[in-house]
Amino acid sequence: MRVRIALAEKGVEYEYSEQDLKNKSELLLKMNPVHKKIPVLVHNNKPVCESLIIVEYIDEVWSDKATLLPSDPYHRAQARFWADFVEKKIYDTGRRVWSTKGEDQEAAKKEFIEHLKVLEQELGSKPYFGGDEFGFVDVVFIPFYSWFHAYETLANFKIQESCPKIIEWAKRCMQRESVAKALPDQIKVYEFILELKKRLGI
Amino acid sequence: MRVRIALAEKGVEYEYSEQDLKNKSELLLKMNPVHKKIPVLVHNNKPVCESLIIVEYIDEVWSDKATLLPSDPYHRAQARFWADFVEKKIYDTGRRVWSTKGEDQEAAKKEFIEHLKVLEQELGSKPYFGGDEFGFVDVVFIPFYSWFHAYETLANFKIQESCPKIIEWAKRCMQRESVAKALPDQIKVYEFILELKKRLGI
Repeated sequence: MRVRIALAEKGVEYEYSEQDLKNKSELLLKMNPVHKKIPVLVHNNKPVCESLIIVEYIDEVWSDKATLLPSDPYHRAQARFWADFVEKKIYDTGRRVWSTKGEDQEAAKKEFIEHLKVLEQELGSKPYFGGDEFGFVDVVFIPFYSWFHAYETLANFKIQESCPKIIEWAKRCMQRESVAKALPDQIKVYEFILELKKRLGI
Repeated sequence: MRVRIALAEKGVEYEYSEQDLKNKSELLLKMNPVHKKIPVLVHNNKPVCESLIIVEYIDEVWSDKATLLPSDPYHRAQARFWADFVEKKIYDTGRRVWSTKGEDQEAAKKEFIEHLKVLEQELGSKPYFGGDEFGFVDVVFIPFYSWFHAYETLANFKIQESCPKIIEWAKRCMQRESVAKALPDQIKVYEFILELKKRLGI
C-alpha cells in the first residue's frame, strides 16, 4: 500500500503483480532472494525491496513532483524517525490486538493506544505529519487505517475516543485519490482477519 | 559507535557524554522522550535519534566530505537495504549466540553464520560494501566486529572459517582511524559479556 500510494502521488504508471505468498513465484524469489517478501519494486529491471526504502527510492527518482521527504536534513531525520516509530511499534502491537484474548489483549490494546497517542501528540494541530503537505510519514502510517475497524471490533474499543486527531488526519488522507485507491475497505480487512483467525485457530 | 565513526569520517568535533542506562539522565529523557535510548546526537540544540537515522543526518549535514551514501538512487536504496539487513539480523542473532546454551546456541550460531554468509556474498571481492570507498553499510556493520571474539569464544566457532572475506574487510576497516578509535577492544567486550552473563545468571 505504501508503494502504491507513493507511485500514485508521483503520477507514475506501473504494472501491479499480485503475489501468492503461500506459493512464492520464481520472480519474487529472484527479485528478493534475501527476505523473499513483498513489496518489491522492479524499476529498470532492478529490484528495490523493503517498503520504507522503496518509498525513499521513489521520492529520489521522481523528485520533480509531490516531494515526500522535506529537503532540510533535520526535518528529513524527523520524518525518518516517525516512519521508523510506526514501522517498529504499530504493526506488531496491532497484530497482538487482534490475535490475542483476555489479559494479553487488554495489554496489547493499552500499548497500542499509547503508541497512537504518541503519534497524536506528534501530529498536534498540523494537517499532516510533515506540516501542510502530505508526506513520508503519512504514506508510511496511513495503510494501518484500513485495519482500524478490525482492531476496534475484535478488541472492543474506539480509537476516536483516545485519538480524535488521528482519525481526522486519516479521513483527510482518505480524501486523496492516491490513498483512497490504495487502501482496501475496512470491512473487507475485518472479514479477512476473521477468516485468518479461524484458519490459525485463534 | 556508528555515530562516532561517521563524525570522525567527516572530521566533526563533538562533546561525548557517556550515559548511565540504569539511571537515565534528565538530558537523555528530554532529548529522546519516545525511546529513551542512546545514541542521541544533539546538533543546534535539537536531538536526532536512532543510529541509522543519525548517520544519514550526519552525511546530509556535512555533505562536503567523506560521502557515506552514494548519489545514485538505486545505489542509495541498495546501501539502505544492507544497512537494514544488518540492523534486523545481526544484533538479535548475535545476542542469542552469546546468551543461550546447547541446542538453542547451536541454532543461533547456524543462523548467525547464514546471515554473515549473505553479507560475505554481497561484499564479494570489493574492498568495502559500497565499492572502493568506505561508506554507509561499513559504518553500520563494523561495530559488530568488536563482538566477534566474544561470539566465537562463547559459542566455540571461528567466523574466519565460513566468512574469510568478512574478516579481511573488518581488518581493512580497522586500519581507518575513525573505526579503530571508536571500537572497544574485543577482549574487553568479551569480559563485559562474561560479567553480564554472570549478572543475568545465564
